Amino acid sequence: MSYARQLLDTYPGTAGVDAGVLAVAIDALSDCVQACAADVDADLSEQNVRDMVTCIRLCLDCADVCAAALGVTSRQASYDANVTRPLLQACVAICKSCGDECERHARHHEHCRICEQACRRCEKACRELLDTMN
Amino acid sequence: MSYARQLLDTYPGTAGVDAGVLAVAIDALSDCVQACAADVDADLSEQNVRDMVTCIRLCLDCADVCAAALGVTSRQASYDANVTRPLLQACVAICKSCGDECERHARHHEHCRICEQACRRCEKACRELLDTMN
Amino acid sequence: MSYARQLLDTYPGTAGVDAGVLAVAIDALSDCVQACAADVDADLSEQNVRDMVTCIRLCLDCADVCAAALGVTSRQASYDANVTRPLLQACVAICKSCGDECERHARHHEHCRICEQACRRCEKACRELLDTMN
Amino acid sequence: MSYARQLLDTYPGTAGVDAGVLAVAIDALSDCVQACAADVDADLSEQNVRDMVTCIRLCLDCADVCAAALGVTSRQASYDANVTRPLLQACVAICKSCGDECERHARHHEHCRICEQACRRCEKACRELLDTMN
Repeated sequence: MSYARQLLDTYPGTAGVDAGVLAVAIDALSDCVQACAADVDADLSEQNVRDMVTCIRLCLDCADVCAAALGVTSRQASYDANVTRPLLQACVAICKSCGDECERHARHHEHCRICEQACRRCEKACRELLDTMN
Repeated sequence: MSYARQLLDTYPGTAGVDAGVLAVAIDALSDCVQACAADVDADLSEQNVRDMVTCIRLCLDCADVCAAALGVTSRQASYDANVTRPLLQACVAICKSCGDECERHARHHEHCRICEQACRRCEKACRELLDTMN
Repeated sequence: MSYARQLLDTYPGTAGVDAGVLAVAIDALSDCVQACAADVDADLSEQNVRDMVTCIRLCLDCADVCAAALGVTSRQASYDANVTRPLLQACVAICKSCGDECERHARHHEHCRICEQACRRCEKACRELLDTMN
Repeated sequence: MSYARQLLDTYPGTAGVDAGVLAVAIDALSDCVQACAADVDADLSEQNVRDMVTCIRLCLDCADVCAAALGVTSRQASYDANVTRPLLQACVAICKSCGDECERHARHHEHCRICEQACRRCEKACRELLDTMN
C-alpha cells in the first residue's frame, strides 16, 4: 500500500473526497512529476534535440502543474472547489498535451513512451477525482 | 527593472502576451510564493497557533499554486490557454481566499497584513494577465 | 517496476551512477515529499497542534529539500559532485531530524509513524547514493 | 522594501541570523529561481539549441536547489546548521556553475547575460549568509 493511501487512512480530520480515488490521484501526480523531470533530461540527451523542444517545454509545464496539484490534494482538509477544480482541470489539460506529444516520439524514444504512460495515468486519475467532486 | 522584465525584453521567440502585464504577474507570483512561505513560519511561531491553522493551510496552497503559475508563465513560448487559463483561475481563487484569511488576522499579526498585500497584488496581476488572454 | 527505474533503463546518455541505487533513491525521495506534505496537513488537524509545530516545520523543510534532490537526481546527465553531494547531505540531515521528530509522535499519531518510515527509507537511500559517489 | 524584509521585521519569533543578510539572500534566491526558469525557455527558443543543452540542465538544477533554499531560509525559526549549511553550499556550487555557463553564452544571448547576473548575485548572497552562520 502506498504511503499516500496509508496517510489518508490515518488522517485525523474528515476527508472531503473518496480516499481510494484520492490516493490513486496522489500517486499518479507524484509519478508524473518525476517522469516528466526525467524525460526532460532524456530528451536533452538525444541527438535530435531540436525535435524535442516542444516535448521538453510540455514536460516542464506538466511537472510544475502536477507538483502543485500534488501539494494541494495532499492537504485534503482544505478542499476548496474554487481552487481544486481549476487546478485539476489545468492538470488534465497539460497531461493530455504532454502525453500526446510524448506519444509522437514514443516509437523512436522509449523514454517518451514511459513518460506518456505516466501522463495518461495522471490525466485519468485527475479526471476521476474531478468527477467525485461534482 | 526586475530580472523578469529584462528576460522578457531579451526573449528570442515571439511572446504571446503583453510583456508589461506578464512581467508584473511574474514578479507578483514570485513575491507571493515567498510571502506565503514566510507567513506559514510566522503563524507557527504565534502563541495562538490553533487560531492560525486555516491561515497556514491557505498559505501552503497559495505558495504551491503560485509556484506552478510562476514556472508556466516564465516559459512564455508554450502558452496554451487550456492550461494557463484554469491555472491562473486557481491562482486568483487561492490568492483571494488566502488574502481574505490573512486580513482577518492583520490587526493582531503584522506578518499577516504583509502577506495579505502580497496575495492581493498577485490576485490582481493574475486577473489582468487573464484579461489579456481573452 | 517504477517509472523511475524504467526511465533510467531507457536513458540515452551515460549514467554516472548505479541505476538500481539511483532508482531506489528517486522513488524514496518522491515518496518522502508526498508523505511530509500529507503529515503537515494531518498535524494541523490534531487537537494538540501546538505540540506539533516542530514536526510541521521539519516536514516542510524535508519536503522542500527532497523535492530539490528529486529534480537534480532525475537529471542524471549533469551529476556534479560539488552540487549533488552537499544536496544529498542536506537530505540525509533533514530526513534524520524529521524522522526522529515523527518518531516522538508515532505512538499517539499513526500518520507520524508512516511519515517516519518514509523519512527513514529516504535517509537510507540518500546515504547509499552518496556512498556510490565516492 | 521587499516583502521578505518586511516579513522578517515582523517575525514573532527570534531570528537565528542577521535580518539584513537573510533578506538579501531570500530576495536573491527568489530572483534566481525565476531567472533560471525563464532562461531555460529562452535557450530552448534559440536556433543553436544543441549548444545550449548544458546551460539548460544547469539552469534546471539551479532553479530546483534555489527553490529549496528559498523555502528553508524563509522558515527561519527552524535553522539547523546540519541542513542549512550543506543546502547553501549546494546553492553556491550550482549558482557558480550556472553563472559560468551563462557567461559563456552572454556575448551571443542577452538572456544568458541577465541570468548570469541573477546567479552571481545569488551565489554572493548565499556565501554571505553562510559566513554569518559560522
